[in-house]
Amino acid sequence: MMDTFLQRAGALDAADQLARFHELFHVPEGKIYLDGNSLGLMPKACAARVQGVLHNEWSEGLISSWSGAGWFHLPMTVGDRIAPIVGAGEKEIAVGDSTSVNLFKCLAAALKLQEGRKVILSEADNFPTDHYIASGLADMMDGYSVRDLNPGDDLAKKLDEKVAVLILSHVHYKTCEIRDVKAINQAAHDNGVLVLWDLSHTSGAVEINLKADDCDFAVGCTYKYLNGGPGAPAFAWINPRLQEKIQQPLSGWMGHFDPFAFTPDYQPAHGARRFVCGTPQVLSLSSLDEALKLWSDVDRDALFAKSRAMTSFFIEAVETVCADYPLTLVCPRDASKRGSHVSFDYENGYGAMRAMADRGVTGDFRAPKTMRFGFAPLYLSFADVANAVGHLKVVLDGQEWDREEYKIRGEVT
Amino acid sequence: MMDTFLQRAGALDAADQLARFHELFHVPEGKIYLDGNSLGLMPKACAARVQGVLHNEWSEGLISSWSGAGWFHLPMTVGDRIAPIVGAGEKEIAVGDSTSVNLFKCLAAALKLQEGRKVILSEADNFPTDHYIASGLADMMDGYSVRDLNPGDDLAKKLDEKVAVLILSHVHYKTCEIRDVKAINQAAHDNGVLVLWDLSHTSGAVEINLKADDCDFAVGCTYKYLNGGPGAPAFAWINPRLQEKIQQPLSGWMGHFDPFAFTPDYQPAHGARRFVCGTPQVLSLSSLDEALKLWSDVDRDALFAKSRAMTSFFIEAVETVCADYPLTLVCPRDASKRGSHVSFDYENGYGAMRAMADRGVTGDFRAPKTMRFGFAPLYLSFADVANAVGHLKVVLDGQEWDREEYKIRGEVT
Repeated sequence: MMDTFLQRAGALDAADQLARFHELFHVPEGKIYLDGNSLGLMPKACAARVQGVLHNEWSEGLISSWSGAGWFHLPMTVGDRIAPIVGAGEKEIAVGDSTSVNLFKCLAAALKLQEGRKVILSEADNFPTDHYIASGLADMMDGYSVRDLNPGDDLAKKLDEKVAVLILSHVHYKTCEIRDVKAINQAAHDNGVLVLWDLSHTSGAVEINLKADDCDFAVGCTYKYLNGGPGAPAFAWINPRLQEKIQQPLSGWMGHFDPFAFTPDYQPAHGARRFVCGTPQVLSLSSLDEALKLWSDVDRDALFAKSRAMTSFFIEAVETVCADYPLTLVCPRDASKRGSHVSFDYENGYGAMRAMADRGVTGDFRAPKTMRFGFAPLYLSFADVANAVGHLKVVLDGQEWDREEYKIRGEVT
Repeated sequence: MMDTFLQRAGALDAADQLARFHELFHVPEGKIYLDGNSLGLMPKACAARVQGVLHNEWSEGLISSWSGAGWFHLPMTVGDRIAPIVGAGEKEIAVGDSTSVNLFKCLAAALKLQEGRKVILSEADNFPTDHYIASGLADMMDGYSVRDLNPGDDLAKKLDEKVAVLILSHVHYKTCEIRDVKAINQAAHDNGVLVLWDLSHTSGAVEINLKADDCDFAVGCTYKYLNGGPGAPAFAWINPRLQEKIQQPLSGWMGHFDPFAFTPDYQPAHGARRFVCGTPQVLSLSSLDEALKLWSDVDRDALFAKSRAMTSFFIEAVETVCADYPLTLVCPRDASKRGSHVSFDYENGYGAMRAMADRGVTGDFRAPKTMRFGFAPLYLSFADVANAVGHLKVVLDGQEWDREEYKIRGEVT
């Protein structure tokens, strides 16, 4: 059976117009890396770029590099590289700080626009930081609160005149379900509610059209499918129809209209630049800048189609090749509703993922029994996918998950 | 006259026990860099360290480096390297985010501790970001406001039962005046006010004893005298007597008690770790970590004494050698009240600093007429100081400031 899938993988790879991007990344020898949804591979160009920042821009150019090497403008130039990937326009995205900090900025800005409404509607089982930040913000503001949106809730019933803003992930980090952005925005707007989308598991793998679908705010992570490097700075997008009205409390000097005038009053820069706060972390931001350069050659539609094709292929292969084992798919079966990772529940999932890691296949384990596999369409091949399934079969057949060294409970790294 | 100063510089350098640190930094050929108070020179070790992070930790180790390479703990391990430099203890400092974001965290935490008091007392002519952040925070909270502390104001009269927190720079970025930390803390505490100190122009050059002087909160910048790299992450310190009581609204998942449990409720980590917010920018944070390693060999007292000796030497040399020109010292003459930079007002300061830059001497210009020179005691020699004065004399004698190419008004980089 494996042979059929390997053959099909060969044909799919031969027809893959994105295959040429693989060689732009450093792939550790003998590894199949299915964790690009956690930390993307390093584009080879990033190493040279960061070296240049160290040796030329910092150590030689020193302070003159703020203008001479474009450091000052990086938050916006990097934003312009991300824009086409998420369906945004030029000068609409500011890059810097973490996803958590950007969530805070956007939520606070949304609350300010919605005076009189004091509820943040937030998914209780969203990636924790989203819910934590919503709570942190509500706790500091008199009379504000977070209303939980739980799985199975009827969204329409949760949207009332008290709700200022709804915060949702476009692709759920656990279930991998894609939300219907347009319909949710419409329902929210009909009720006077603004929507903040978290694109952490979206950008670089799944289609999103921020402007066409009339989103209000969005934030996203750049170290997953955008391969910016560990902890690479996040981005914030604000719909242009809101940009000039917006006030956000992290009003650091780098978001000022004229930072070097050193005036005592904060006057925000035009547009998205007002979402920049303090001095950007240039080494990390430069690595991201470089990682994004290759995206100008990426066909968005081909990329999103490859993501769906890979996850579909993986599911079919696992359910065929490993049919003898009680693996339960815990993500949407319909590819159009599924992001770029796939999870299977398996009672011995922890040991199985440890055994897979020892065989060179990196995935993720989420307690109590979820095996999670991420498929970065930019650098993975269908052969990688088929071979990963082959390893899973060997692990299951050999009951490798039951070996003593794999029994300690904890995080699979 | 110059000869005398050059000779004295030679003797001072021969006796300087910190002279050996010079060779650990990359100094651009032929440059005298008097802008370390803006962006410090690159310690040579940083380049190799960041290369290692790129090639080994990121591209090979990938996600396993969060534990394997210690990325997860970096915000606190880097904090422990800063602690002795500012008179703090172990596990009391969290590193990450920008100074602006850390100001926000500390101010918000202080307000939460001080419920009922709704005024932030802030210097109107502090470095702008401090004042902007105070305003940004007050604007989002019902009934809160910022009260300006203006030069010449009697602090005691400004501290009343409405004031929750006082935010001050320890070393003023313009005047370079050192504040009396102990006395100000005492006056504030007597009135029930908490104090947040900004150490941006302090850490790595000027003595501060956070714990001994009973400070409440402090933040500081690491890309100036600590040489962490452009935009290197900032730090926050919280007095241990407050740490466990503190709630701050930037409650990102990395400051959670058990981040990988992915629980919906935020439960802060113990101590200063609760000031960590989102995923740290590892490239920038690693460079800082490396830059700080050499500080374990630095004699704090010798460092602070050298800063005072250098600035005194510079003032004396300028006022002697350039006595024919109308230069006005605009920083304290008393070395014990002066930080590590020196400013002179000069009508043609803009052109003079441009001419100095062309001669390889980098300083700073602040409109309308302030020439600012920073003295990083860790890597500068007294010969550098004397030679800089020599160049200034040549610029003034030759009226080089009057050349056409130096007349365009703007920032000196």
